Amino acid sequence: MAVYKELSPSLRTIMTPGPVEVDPRVLRAMSFPVLGQFDPEFTSLMNETMAMLRELYMTNNVWSYPVDGTSRSGIEAVLVSLIQPGDKVLVPVYGRFGYLLVEISERCGAEVVLVETEWGRAFDPEELIQAIHLHKPKLVAMVHGETSTGQMQPLADVGKVCRELDILLVVDAVATIGGTPVETDAWYLDAVIGGTQKCLSVPSGMAPLTYNRRVEQQLISRKTIERGLRDSDCARAGERTIASNYLDLSQLQDYWGPARLNHHTEATSMLYGLYEGLRIVLLEGLEARYLRHRINEQALMAGIEGMGLALYGDLSSKLPVVSCIKIPQGIDGERVRRMLLHDFGIEIASSFGPLKGKIWRIGTMGFSCQRRNVLHVLGALEAVLRRHGYNVSAGEAVQAALDVYAGKEKEGVLC
Amino acid sequence: MAVYKELSPSLRTIMTPGPVEVDPRVLRAMSFPVLGQFDPEFTSLMNETMAMLRELYMTNNVWSYPVDGTSRSGIEAVLVSLIQPGDKVLVPVYGRFGYLLVEISERCGAEVVLVETEWGRAFDPEELIQAIHLHKPKLVAMVHGETSTGQMQPLADVGKVCRELDILLVVDAVATIGGTPVETDAWYLDAVIGGTQKCLSVPSGMAPLTYNRRVEQQLISRKTIERGLRDSDCARAGERTIASNYLDLSQLQDYWGPARLNHHTEATSMLYGLYEGLRIVLLEGLEARYLRHRINEQALMAGIEGMGLALYGDLSSKLPVVSCIKIPQGIDGERVRRMLLHDFGIEIASSFGPLKGKIWRIGTMGFSCQRRNVLHVLGALEAVLRRHGYNVSAGEAVQAALDVYAGKEKEGVLC
Repeated sequence: MAVYKELSPSLRTIMTPGPVEVDPRVLRAMSFPVLGQFDPEFTSLMNETMAMLRELYMTNNVWSYPVDGTSRSGIEAVLVSLIQPGDKVLVPVYGRFGYLLVEISERCGAEVVLVETEWGRAFDPEELIQAIHLHKPKLVAMVHGETSTGQMQPLADVGKVCRELDILLVVDAVATIGGTPVETDAWYLDAVIGGTQKCLSVPSGMAPLTYNRRVEQQLISRKTIERGLRDSDCARAGERTIASNYLDLSQLQDYWGPARLNHHTEATSMLYGLYEGLRIVLLEGLEARYLRHRINEQALMAGIEGMGLALYGDLSSKLPVVSCIKIPQGIDGERVRRMLLHDFGIEIASSFGPLKGKIWRIGTMGFSCQRRNVLHVLGALEAVLRRHGYNVSAGEAVQAALDVYAGKEKEGVLC
Repeated sequence: MAVYKELSPSLRTIMTPGPVEVDPRVLRAMSFPVLGQFDPEFTSLMNETMAMLRELYMTNNVWSYPVDGTSRSGIEAVLVSLIQPGDKVLVPVYGRFGYLLVEISERCGAEVVLVETEWGRAFDPEELIQAIHLHKPKLVAMVHGETSTGQMQPLADVGKVCRELDILLVVDAVATIGGTPVETDAWYLDAVIGGTQKCLSVPSGMAPLTYNRRVEQQLISRKTIERGLRDSDCARAGERTIASNYLDLSQLQDYWGPARLNHHTEATSMLYGLYEGLRIVLLEGLEARYLRHRINEQALMAGIEGMGLALYGDLSSKLPVVSCIKIPQGIDGERVRRMLLHDFGIEIASSFGPLKGKIWRIGTMGFSCQRRNVLHVLGALEAVLRRHGYNVSAGEAVQAALDVYAGKEKEGVLC
């Protein structure tokens, strides 16, 4: 037998668009001994988690619970539970994760209408409203915060139009939840999927989501109960049956609801982590948390520009928790990233598809979104760029960021 | 805002068929700070996890990795990645979890042939071989250890026949992996799915699996690459495309393999837990671990019979990690379970469907499978039964179990 090393991960400053650093209180929570899944203490924790998710998602939706899988499991759960083969689904795409919505919808058998805008901007809501009127889909699926391009799509107008036309609006808020407002009810969002490993600063592995009565009605009309659990032998899988068992929200809500119908075995330790992560978010307060994210973003941007680098993309629709930086001519972006990790223990991200090798992406998310991290990454990036022969204004980046923090303190804003 | 309580779960003695108690070393591992998903340190951990899974599954299969979801996500991943609509799938059922295989296969569009035997026994391999010859399915899906009835299906003969007839054999080893031998290669199993929260004693939330070249060939023939990641815009989802993105093994193996193609964000802390859990299993040694499970099972059974209770099911095919006990006439099984939990902090399980209210199920799995737990549950069950007016031979249960341990020690067997 080979001998396997004791686990001993290095400490990192993680400034990517996720996974990001985890609050030590969340890590501690994940190390608590487990409870059984139907232990009354555990089902209480499930209920309290649902209550906290409602606050986070700014919603009165009964159904607000995590799917046991990474973020895209939650996206797929919503889409596979709503889409029937042949349904028309409109997906406006402004980056990589829009394509993921296309891909999942296609696999669910949807007739997908893809509307694209160039990468680096969001849609003008009017463009979207026109497309919705033109195509009259059953469902619109959209990304709220597109980490691949650092852009954020305003959703309130789109939501209103979808509601008026009785179209379902499904939103991927994986990157935004907990870092910038996601107003489920006020924006008329029918289903919203969040991520744990970004602004919530809980490890990857759960996909908290919420959906309203309009979605629930669709689910109920497609519901079957597992043969091993149902009393009679009537319902078999039929034409309208949801194609997945694991991601069937009609079954999941019977597990999370008072029926407590056995489905999977809830991921205990991940739930402990999510519970504690949500508690920390609500203790900080949503408004204070969003403000913290905005201030650190401003400091980071000031530092990036202060050292003479250029930001990528339309700043008027910038995603506040991800900043994209154009890699200067003649610089090998991957070598810079490797040196940041190797010498400074800092991770920043590259990007995908057409942006591969052209931009770096720096996240300011959750627990990673703090002053010492912003200052550390600016100082380190400057040093690495100089080491690669790029002529930066030495020392200016950190000073520019410090100016932002000092200015906020003068205004009496804590961050 | 409501005030949410600090997390503070009670300590439990968990003697169910899962989730069971977690080794403190695994809990500690889950509290380590996270690494980024493409951090070289993290991808090394992924590779080492795969190597350990190969040892656990007794296989040379390249592909041995976890799906990020609970056990049934792994089962569905294998089935949805292999089954195309209209494929004939044979599912021999001897308990509830066989029905789950039927349900998932139906949702994948399979033409399912269900062969059943009464609950409380396993199939004679000859019955299965005849059914396979009769129906000539593309795929046979079977449960190895059926926790709902406490039965285990011998698989070696079935595997050999399937291989001869070029039929794929998919095995749910969720309950058995790490507690009793699962010989993937020697038994000719094509794909095997394990569970974390049972004999591996890692929290629920991952589904480690393994599959061979025969399975891989099928996957490759159905593979597509996400639009956001592929270079050209050729392949769209087609007829043969795997219906799920999240559970698409052809994409997952490109993430776990040297291509490292981005799919989901690996569940870092769960992987830490699995890594440490596997390391602990291999440090103990598979043979020693199986023996420990056998001895504690024997002690438990001796105790149960010692207090005058009867075991349920065919003992010749008994699942060694779950013991089913007939609830005596006149005893309310749920009241007994509630008192065990409330007064003794012990959890044992009820059962499903036709066995609901008729049997209790006691697991002896992983870290929970230890002498002090077996003695504790026997003493407590006796006390609770007496409290409910059932006439047990007082004190005999624990003595009978101690006799088993003493006998083993005399033979020089450590446990």
